[in-house]
Amino acid sequence: MNRQDIRRIAVFTSGGDAPGMNAALRAVVRTAAWNKLHVYGIERGFEGMIDGHFQRLERRDVANIIQRGGTMLRTARSMRFMSTEGRQAAYEHLKAYDIDACIAIGGNGTFTGAKIFSEEFNIPFIGIPGTIDNDLYGTDYTIGFDTAVNTAIDAVDKIRDTADSHNRLFFVEVMGRNSGYIALYTAIGSGASSVLIPEAETNLEDLKSVLRKNKARGKLFSVVIVAEGHPMGGATGIAEKIQHELASMEPKVTVIGHLQRGGSPTAADRLLASRLGHAAVEVLLAGQENVAVGIVNGQVTTYPFDDAITKEKVPQEELIRMASILAI
Amino acid sequence: MNRQDIRRIAVFTSGGDAPGMNAALRAVVRTAAWNKLHVYGIERGFEGMIDGHFQRLERRDVANIIQRGGTMLRTARSMRFMSTEGRQAAYEHLKAYDIDACIAIGGNGTFTGAKIFSEEFNIPFIGIPGTIDNDLYGTDYTIGFDTAVNTAIDAVDKIRDTADSHNRLFFVEVMGRNSGYIALYTAIGSGASSVLIPEAETNLEDLKSVLRKNKARGKLFSVVIVAEGHPMGGATGIAEKIQHELASMEPKVTVIGHLQRGGSPTAADRLLASRLGHAAVEVLLAGQENVAVGIVNGQVTTYPFDDAITKEKVPQEELIRMASILAI
Amino acid sequence: MNRQDIRRIAVFTSGGDAPGMNAALRAVVRTAAWNKLHVYGIERGFEGMIDGHFQRLERRDVANIIQRGGTMLRTARSMRFMSTEGRQAAYEHLKAYDIDACIAIGGNGTFTGAKIFSEEFNIPFIGIPGTIDNDLYGTDYTIGFDTAVNTAIDAVDKIRDTADSHNRLFFVEVMGRNSGYIALYTAIGSGASSVLIPEAETNLEDLKSVLRKNKARGKLFSVVIVAEGHPMGGATGIAEKIQHELASMEPKVTVIGHLQRGGSPTAADRLLASRLGHAAVEVLLAGQENVAVGIVNGQVTTYPFDDAITKEKVPQEELIRMASILAI
Amino acid sequence: MNRQDIRRIAVFTSGGDAPGMNAALRAVVRTAAWNKLHVYGIERGFEGMIDGHFQRLERRDVANIIQRGGTMLRTARSMRFMSTEGRQAAYEHLKAYDIDACIAIGGNGTFTGAKIFSEEFNIPFIGIPGTIDNDLYGTDYTIGFDTAVNTAIDAVDKIRDTADSHNRLFFVEVMGRNSGYIALYTAIGSGASSVLIPEAETNLEDLKSVLRKNKARGKLFSVVIVAEGHPMGGATGIAEKIQHELASMEPKVTVIGHLQRGGSPTAADRLLASRLGHAAVEVLLAGQENVAVGIVNGQVTTYPFDDAITKEKVPQEELIRMASILAI
Repeated sequence: MNRQDIRRIAVFTSGGDAPGMNAALRAVVRTAAWNKLHVYGIERGFEGMIDGHFQRLERRDVANIIQRGGTMLRTARSMRFMSTEGRQAAYEHLKAYDIDACIAIGGNGTFTGAKIFSEEFNIPFIGIPGTIDNDLYGTDYTIGFDTAVNTAIDAVDKIRDTADSHNRLFFVEVMGRNSGYIALYTAIGSGASSVLIPEAETNLEDLKSVLRKNKARGKLFSVVIVAEGHPMGGATGIAEKIQHELASMEPKVTVIGHLQRGGSPTAADRLLASRLGHAAVEVLLAGQENVAVGIVNGQVTTYPFDDAITKEKVPQEELIRMASILAI
Repeated sequence: MNRQDIRRIAVFTSGGDAPGMNAALRAVVRTAAWNKLHVYGIERGFEGMIDGHFQRLERRDVANIIQRGGTMLRTARSMRFMSTEGRQAAYEHLKAYDIDACIAIGGNGTFTGAKIFSEEFNIPFIGIPGTIDNDLYGTDYTIGFDTAVNTAIDAVDKIRDTADSHNRLFFVEVMGRNSGYIALYTAIGSGASSVLIPEAETNLEDLKSVLRKNKARGKLFSVVIVAEGHPMGGATGIAEKIQHELASMEPKVTVIGHLQRGGSPTAADRLLASRLGHAAVEVLLAGQENVAVGIVNGQVTTYPFDDAITKEKVPQEELIRMASILAI
Repeated sequence: MNRQDIRRIAVFTSGGDAPGMNAALRAVVRTAAWNKLHVYGIERGFEGMIDGHFQRLERRDVANIIQRGGTMLRTARSMRFMSTEGRQAAYEHLKAYDIDACIAIGGNGTFTGAKIFSEEFNIPFIGIPGTIDNDLYGTDYTIGFDTAVNTAIDAVDKIRDTADSHNRLFFVEVMGRNSGYIALYTAIGSGASSVLIPEAETNLEDLKSVLRKNKARGKLFSVVIVAEGHPMGGATGIAEKIQHELASMEPKVTVIGHLQRGGSPTAADRLLASRLGHAAVEVLLAGQENVAVGIVNGQVTTYPFDDAITKEKVPQEELIRMASILAI
Repeated sequence: MNRQDIRRIAVFTSGGDAPGMNAALRAVVRTAAWNKLHVYGIERGFEGMIDGHFQRLERRDVANIIQRGGTMLRTARSMRFMSTEGRQAAYEHLKAYDIDACIAIGGNGTFTGAKIFSEEFNIPFIGIPGTIDNDLYGTDYTIGFDTAVNTAIDAVDKIRDTADSHNRLFFVEVMGRNSGYIALYTAIGSGASSVLIPEAETNLEDLKSVLRKNKARGKLFSVVIVAEGHPMGGATGIAEKIQHELASMEPKVTVIGHLQRGGSPTAADRLLASRLGHAAVEVLLAGQENVAVGIVNGQVTTYPFDDAITKEKVPQEELIRMASILAI
């Protein structure tokens, strides 16, 4: 599509919410306005596209939102968009509003929907990677990850106060359904004793041995970070398997939970979201379509939706090794 | 006991830890030093008293701790102190260190131990109320309560971001084993839709009706705060009972957990702990014994351990009523 | 005025903004709605009253603001309201909107305006004390004070990191134009070496002697808190007078500044603002007028505007004395 | 130097303190311990090296410091190290302690000292870039920068509350003596109206025009971020030059100041510091010397001290341009 043909675009957030989505919306709207485009915001992602919930967004409509968690357009997972009828209805609303292109902020599911839709209908999409899990290939970091890690570390810092006061062992579960990024970064950043993630093999005998050795060395308490998606059943599953043998350490389980999704975005997430929102409009106007934007090695880049969906991104081995050295 | 006879005192923290305990320790040590007393810190409460884990604390030893969560002396619950043998061993260590009086920072269990001990042995105790639950009679607020409420509200603020973004219903469990103080203050402070506490009757039909009415009125999401000690089984128990009927609101449960015990104490807790630590030494030197200190209506006060242990403190009715009016 | 006669009220914020003003607005609007009153919000205090900037506020209009700093109605100091013409214009707008009573959230200047106006015109006012300075007689605490103190302490905690790392002396100025409340509470809460406030005499020789003695005792750094309104010229003035003699401590001055006015209100300020907003409507409906509401000893109370304006409130002597004992 | 010859190393922090220095110390000590090295910590940088203030650091000595601001070894700028006598004294202490290599955490001045010393004496140095200013060539980010930016943004978020409530213009000065990194990132992250940094030309006419246009467009308040090292005299200098013409916006100046140096390090700074501390020991053992470590494009790298000292690092042009587009 030629950039001269794009005059009206739509933007929406979809899937799980992530801190920084508002900053990305702001950047899309303002960069579009700067380029004389008209912008429509669609509420609740593909759901609102199907139901025709569109609203005009001008520069001032995105004032004072850069610091807010959540997403002003709300978000949803849409079952209906998986059907041809759903997508047809969505298409008709886009046509009715004369939308020339869409910018979708979300994760894997969002990009999958965008890819299928843009193959069926002639409306180009640009994706912006927004998910706290950081499990999207094609960008070093996703919007919301840095905030979620800071929130988790802040929680572990607090838990450590009580673990330390009582000489206790804590199993702390952080988010990450299929990915250990949040867990690994939280573990390094909070100085945890161990971290258990789906991407690395877990040997419970080793874990017990580390915890016992730590105690023998004078470490008075231990915190073990477990990724939500750990195949042994998260922190609860792990704790059940070994707490009996470590009873003298009075093991406790705590699941940090949904608060990791919220909160004012960190500096890094505001910067990242601003850059990606800005870039999404720029690459669209440069003629690209059906790609997602990312930052790799500090530079804006684009990659096909397919890569984001199918290729795997895993934490650096080096970090896993380092975590175990520094924990001792 | 005459103030001239007191030259060496011991101080310890016991029971559950609470933010501000370090600030109280600092105030005890410095006020004692100002009055030319020698202070010993006992590690891990009654456990350390039984085992003889005493350390000399001087002014500089409590520098730079006012802002720290947890307790530098650590804390524990002691089964052994419930036996005559345990208390006898504790007494012998106190004698060996020539301790004339003890200052105990903790909650109900701590005060019970102090009361029994001081009846058996001729060593006066002064109690300082430190527990996040605020369920101690005799003081308007206990050390740690304000911090715990701020932590819980901060967590609910974050959860609200995601509840709002997804139009969801959240049941959030906050701490408080027998007491609804944290839950009630968190609910008012976070603008929650409802609050369920042990001190007020819970009618699930009313709750469902409120939630449905809110939705009909255009409230897009709801947060219900539940006290950990709610007799229907905390947030999980409540949610199980009614989530089926509210399925369209996609109810989620989150348990904020142990992070409520930690963190740097708030201004109010640092002030309260400083005042109570200071007062504990002053009332001891004024000849009082076997009482706890508190702040009631802004003034330092004392009350017998018995009152703290047996009398009930419940949240003001007015606040419960107001919470329901403001939630709508 | 009889409560049956009140059907429409106006609410506004005036003077300096304070965190928690939004929580108070929310409480006023929702308590009024519960009592079937219509509420109008006036923008920018007396300025908006003169210019006729009124907006209808319903329950949902104050949703999701309890956690926000600042004031959604904005605020201003109004020179025009000091003239008869200004007040006449304001009156005419109130009449045009059929307003039966006003609720004013602000400090001394706001209450003075309200008093003068309600004496001239037959429209009752209720005041809600909102100012970070806590210098209003009639209530133990004003809305915004607890947040401002927590913000200041958080800043001093950070400054202490660098003071400690460099063994330096810091003079830190906190807000408080005529009042040392913020300074005194910040000093106690941050464990500062000294505090200089307008309410207590300042002897620079004593200060220098304390700082030197601390150094001799092994204290590696010192933080001195100075109230903005200190008659010797705030932190800058004090530092200029004595830094030469303390050059070896590398004295630095830092003025915390306007950030103390902002930020999400603390739990205590949300509670206080909710209670006062709620109470303002209740006492109005109970027939009171031209009084301000407050919380004294945990109970709602009212007091004539005159008392708030003319009577002085000063920090407890006991706290000033304690601060100096604990600092050593 | 061959890695087999290195058995005892010294580590110190020097120059301005930065959040994350403790995390770097911890990583150095633990990685060294893992590699069976003995570690000595030197107090107050080159000053302590000259005075012989060394202490043995073992694994447990760096427990529970990863979350602390400042530096447990303290820091200083050393005039004496600029003289041959000073360096000779330092060398003799290093020899007395049998130190085979040094790891220096600091900025430009620290690296300059290390370079000169290691040219004069046969003791290899590895540098770790720690400075909030992020103005060191050879690494994408320096330790402390992310924390300082988050602290500055948090302050601006608060100032914005009051700017918004009063419809005011604020000039906010952030740190950065010769560098606009903190200012630029703070401006983008806080959605400021404008940013003035040493690296980009400042046209006051353009600034006034932007502020006036914003007002005309309905923007009710404006925040202008100014780097401390701006050649027109920081925020105070800029404000003086133009506030007269913008009097209707009631311009205010606020200098965020030293609090930007302190505080618990962010996740990113804890990660960065952990990686760099770990890498410093590893590259030393791999035989490198007189280089600093950095992270470029996510990978550990090394570069000669000379590059760090003489080469300039400036913010990406793209970010400056984007900041102005998003501000509108």
